[in-house]
Amino acid sequence: MRAAVLRGPGDVVVEERPVPRPSRGEVLVRVASVGVCGSDTHYYEHGRIGRFVVEAPLVLGHEASGEVAALGEGVTSLAVGQRVSVEPGVPDLTCEQCLAGRYNLCPNMRFFATPPVDGALAQYVVVHAAFAHPVPADMSDDAAALLEPLSVGIWACRKGGITAGSRVLVTGAGPIGLVSVQAALAFGATEVVVSDVNPARLALARDLGATSVVDARTTSLADLQRPPQVLLECSGHPAATAQALRALDRAGRAVLVGMGGDEIPLPLSVLQERELEVTGTFRYAGTWPTAIALVASGRIDLDRLVTGAYGLREAEEALTAGRRDPQTVKVVVHPQS
Amino acid sequence: MRAAVLRGPGDVVVEERPVPRPSRGEVLVRVASVGVCGSDTHYYEHGRIGRFVVEAPLVLGHEASGEVAALGEGVTSLAVGQRVSVEPGVPDLTCEQCLAGRYNLCPNMRFFATPPVDGALAQYVVVHAAFAHPVPADMSDDAAALLEPLSVGIWACRKGGITAGSRVLVTGAGPIGLVSVQAALAFGATEVVVSDVNPARLALARDLGATSVVDARTTSLADLQRPPQVLLECSGHPAATAQALRALDRAGRAVLVGMGGDEIPLPLSVLQERELEVTGTFRYAGTWPTAIALVASGRIDLDRLVTGAYGLREAEEALTAGRRDPQTVKVVVHPQS
Amino acid sequence: MRAAVLRGPGDVVVEERPVPRPSRGEVLVRVASVGVCGSDTHYYEHGRIGRFVVEAPLVLGHEASGEVAALGEGVTSLAVGQRVSVEPGVPDLTCEQCLAGRYNLCPNMRFFATPPVDGALAQYVVVHAAFAHPVPADMSDDAAALLEPLSVGIWACRKGGITAGSRVLVTGAGPIGLVSVQAALAFGATEVVVSDVNPARLALARDLGATSVVDARTTSLADLQRPPQVLLECSGHPAATAQALRALDRAGRAVLVGMGGDEIPLPLSVLQERELEVTGTFRYAGTWPTAIALVASGRIDLDRLVTGAYGLREAEEALTAGRRDPQTVKVVVHPQS
Amino acid sequence: MRAAVLRGPGDVVVEERPVPRPSRGEVLVRVASVGVCGSDTHYYEHGRIGRFVVEAPLVLGHEASGEVAALGEGVTSLAVGQRVSVEPGVPDLTCEQCLAGRYNLCPNMRFFATPPVDGALAQYVVVHAAFAHPVPADMSDDAAALLEPLSVGIWACRKGGITAGSRVLVTGAGPIGLVSVQAALAFGATEVVVSDVNPARLALARDLGATSVVDARTTSLADLQRPPQVLLECSGHPAATAQALRALDRAGRAVLVGMGGDEIPLPLSVLQERELEVTGTFRYAGTWPTAIALVASGRIDLDRLVTGAYGLREAEEALTAGRRDPQTVKVVVHPQS
Repeated sequence: MRAAVLRGPGDVVVEERPVPRPSRGEVLVRVASVGVCGSDTHYYEHGRIGRFVVEAPLVLGHEASGEVAALGEGVTSLAVGQRVSVEPGVPDLTCEQCLAGRYNLCPNMRFFATPPVDGALAQYVVVHAAFAHPVPADMSDDAAALLEPLSVGIWACRKGGITAGSRVLVTGAGPIGLVSVQAALAFGATEVVVSDVNPARLALARDLGATSVVDARTTSLADLQRPPQVLLECSGHPAATAQALRALDRAGRAVLVGMGGDEIPLPLSVLQERELEVTGTFRYAGTWPTAIALVASGRIDLDRLVTGAYGLREAEEALTAGRRDPQTVKVVVHPQS
Repeated sequence: MRAAVLRGPGDVVVEERPVPRPSRGEVLVRVASVGVCGSDTHYYEHGRIGRFVVEAPLVLGHEASGEVAALGEGVTSLAVGQRVSVEPGVPDLTCEQCLAGRYNLCPNMRFFATPPVDGALAQYVVVHAAFAHPVPADMSDDAAALLEPLSVGIWACRKGGITAGSRVLVTGAGPIGLVSVQAALAFGATEVVVSDVNPARLALARDLGATSVVDARTTSLADLQRPPQVLLECSGHPAATAQALRALDRAGRAVLVGMGGDEIPLPLSVLQERELEVTGTFRYAGTWPTAIALVASGRIDLDRLVTGAYGLREAEEALTAGRRDPQTVKVVVHPQS
Repeated sequence: MRAAVLRGPGDVVVEERPVPRPSRGEVLVRVASVGVCGSDTHYYEHGRIGRFVVEAPLVLGHEASGEVAALGEGVTSLAVGQRVSVEPGVPDLTCEQCLAGRYNLCPNMRFFATPPVDGALAQYVVVHAAFAHPVPADMSDDAAALLEPLSVGIWACRKGGITAGSRVLVTGAGPIGLVSVQAALAFGATEVVVSDVNPARLALARDLGATSVVDARTTSLADLQRPPQVLLECSGHPAATAQALRALDRAGRAVLVGMGGDEIPLPLSVLQERELEVTGTFRYAGTWPTAIALVASGRIDLDRLVTGAYGLREAEEALTAGRRDPQTVKVVVHPQS
Repeated sequence: MRAAVLRGPGDVVVEERPVPRPSRGEVLVRVASVGVCGSDTHYYEHGRIGRFVVEAPLVLGHEASGEVAALGEGVTSLAVGQRVSVEPGVPDLTCEQCLAGRYNLCPNMRFFATPPVDGALAQYVVVHAAFAHPVPADMSDDAAALLEPLSVGIWACRKGGITAGSRVLVTGAGPIGLVSVQAALAFGATEVVVSDVNPARLALARDLGATSVVDARTTSLADLQRPPQVLLECSGHPAATAQALRALDRAGRAVLVGMGGDEIPLPLSVLQERELEVTGTFRYAGTWPTAIALVASGRIDLDRLVTGAYGLREAEEALTAGRRDPQTVKVVVHPQS
């Protein structure tokens, strides 16, 4: 099979590799679509993300869908031919965090495209059967792949306690901000304000259901008509985060999703006088059933986010699409073409 | 002013009464619309509900909207002319339950149309200012009145923990069942199964968004394709309740909204082996802001439920409409006409 | 090795069996102490519990402690010689319930001494390494075994939301009721009322810290001075349960731990007017770390509950001790003696 | 009556003032004991705390106990002679926050000794009847007054989700840190580590039940043997807070109680990778019943904290005691002597 391999910063090649074999409890998936994430681009450009360093050739890609091509020993929950969405992290299942239902915090997590674990920009990948989630026939391959970023948005909404009638502020209208907008609406939010500096992204946010948008270059979050109850911070800018925290209502909740700044200047007296709750998210746990149900029921449209599709041999173009075209929202790679 | 007064079982007359005067912190509301509830009908027919007995002439009606006509001393949050929806129960605000945010459980609650407190089937009523909730200009008077039954549905959804992707079973498709269906969808439920014995109500449930319906006369809840995670029991039938409890998934939640049977035969081993949570609802607390937001945003349609409108002089016809016509869902009274 | 095997109702024999070998991820435990539970006695007397029927020879016992005697492949978290308490149920770890942290509800759970899975009344047992919990040196073997029933009490307290200042009613002062009393106190309850019909057990409850006791033969729960906020039902009597539910405060929580009656007559109007929450417990999840910390810190005394100790050859006497002597609270078997 | 009045920074005089008269729903309390809080000292020294400025003569003191001396109209829950502990803040009871049970976040709160509302360093004060909490006969006047700081600790424990078996870190062993230690133990924590720079306070923390203490001058919190699950930050030092946050376990909770620094440098990647929850506290809500139960049951000893008692004429000495003697923990004023 072919796989797109990152050998160092700015150096991606397509290699022939043997098709992997599923071990007990695993399945082999013939990959249909892989979304390109900001983290893939970051590894491509810098060869590292924080303490994770690409020291050996690495296959990128962790947003994947496909079809079950072979079953490992003992797998009965899936059949060959079943279309699936891949949950890209497999925890050890038995540590304290896993047993408590917080498997995303498992210290022994093996996660796609995080050194030294290979990802999905390949024609075949092997996945733990419990993490290959069947999808309905009418869900597209791209949507099935993008259940992964949607999971980030769903997890943020859960952490934010978003429910019917919530007033939500989403800062940052990149792919994660946009799925968070859709997720917040699906959780019942009736006000979803989105701020960004990119008018095209704000326009898309509005198309996706945001009830109002704020151009952060010209308008302060302090001027919002009603204080939001929940902040989904998807920009990663420390200053924007601090400003957004100050905009929250009493008893508000802030969920810091965007990565970036090392330290956020947390306004202590605001935190205390309003008893804000601030938390960060790390991936997700138990989100696929919800993500599948929301997309299958038509409440969330993921295909809408796809602004470009590439073959595996064009992986490098896919990884640089965002840099070349600011209108890019989400590009996908179709490894079989 | 005129008021419809229940003097005893089956005995309603329209009387002239003095317009009440708002005390400190209260407002006078010129009533625009009053929904007729099953409890009104029950008082009309039987002169009592359980331990609440109509011993003196009583004005019925607790689902009301109108316009602020005068302000009591100290009221600054409202202005004359403001259209409002009336929250019909005012707690003492200082007991342990109130201070904990559970004001619906206040032992000193004064609730419209519950002996000896008069209700809203009159041209004017007096309301605590904090319980007269402003509604947007484009919300109809009827919808504003029906925020009260919607609040019952919202409260049930909160108690049931309904969220994005929930699988919900609603037993009973009367007015409360139907608002619960809409509320469940607004909370993000992606499967809402409704059971009833009345095909017309099931058809309406489907029109309102139920994803499937079950004719309880011919189909057992045990045959559901996937076990629901949440039960909103709105029928009040003990046998239906017991059957529905057995249909729930592991870790399921059951919210018993429908009144009726004295005792539910709770299947102990099912409760234990699946760790079901069973609770009942008593009115609601803090639901109006959510109800207003959901209706104002178009997520819930209350006007759709209105099958008949009457003047105050026709109050008795309004109270008996359901008995006369099984197609009746919700009738309203317009006291000014 | 020797094991006590139940061949049918009333028929227990001690047999020679091969020492089992730990598979990958498992450890071999040399059993030091095994508590006898009511379920063991029930299997001994009746050959079944509900739908679980003893159809082949079965080793009883699921409250066990011991010392690691050998490691299966890949086990690094434990060492030979480590003293451990055995958590007797191992779930599949990958089903929806497990991944959500509710592994006690796993439909594929393999649980000691539940047909067809053998239990711990033997000299050696094999356990999944993650379910063999290290205990401190100064915890007795018996206490380490009785962390299992304590886990039932801890789980009940969690389900009941017991916290500092809670007022708790425990119905039934058998072993589970008594550990629940201690657990409730450890969770911060400041009123713990215990009801039973056995004066000796009530006296022990008081010694263990119950703030008051009620002889259910002569005193009604309706006469409690202040309504409890949480009920831990440990008697299994439907009538006692129904009476206890009626004694709860508004917003009270009832946790039904005791098994027995098929159906509880649930008082619907009480459930609704007070918005009671009723749930049942099924084993426990994630309780061992808490149980170990509570016993190690001296907050809970489990040795106090032991009223008799037997060798493996006396297993049948151990199983019938409760029937022979009403002063029996908890007996243990020491398989090595 | 006499009252100690702050006229400006460093300027406290004892004045004769008329005994206030309770309005409807209020009671007159003859003050027995008043604890001196750091905020009192801060107003005395600086004439302001943040945006609250002493612009007119102000009576300090908000930790008070006493005896009901007269009843306002309509009060039936109390009787003259009843000993009470005073909850010093009265909210408007009807705003969105109050109705949700978060009355501490009421924007219209009137709080003792917060300009322009007078406090309790006087012989008599008027209190809303629902905020004058009866205390048992065997609780001392001083302990009854110190239920107020204990409430701060209880609220912190609730926000932190402390429960049986929790591992807790308390940074800062001043009066609030010390009541938080006791509260954490009462909530069931089995590890309570306390850090401070004052050895005398650390010794007292240990006496009160802390399981270990850390001298922050010589030991880093990074060296703790096991990561705490909950942080109760009571020092107000931004650097200490940032360090303590980094010491928390995955899924840890941090409650920022101590006031001081304007901004906390929140470590974003730590917050995200461990999904920490960070919140601040603002006073308390619904804590008195718990505080009373914990002290009455002997689980918490407040008298132990009192290091000095003064008459009203010595109010200034009381306010400066901490500055004069570093061994000071908590001083009280007895206005009747």
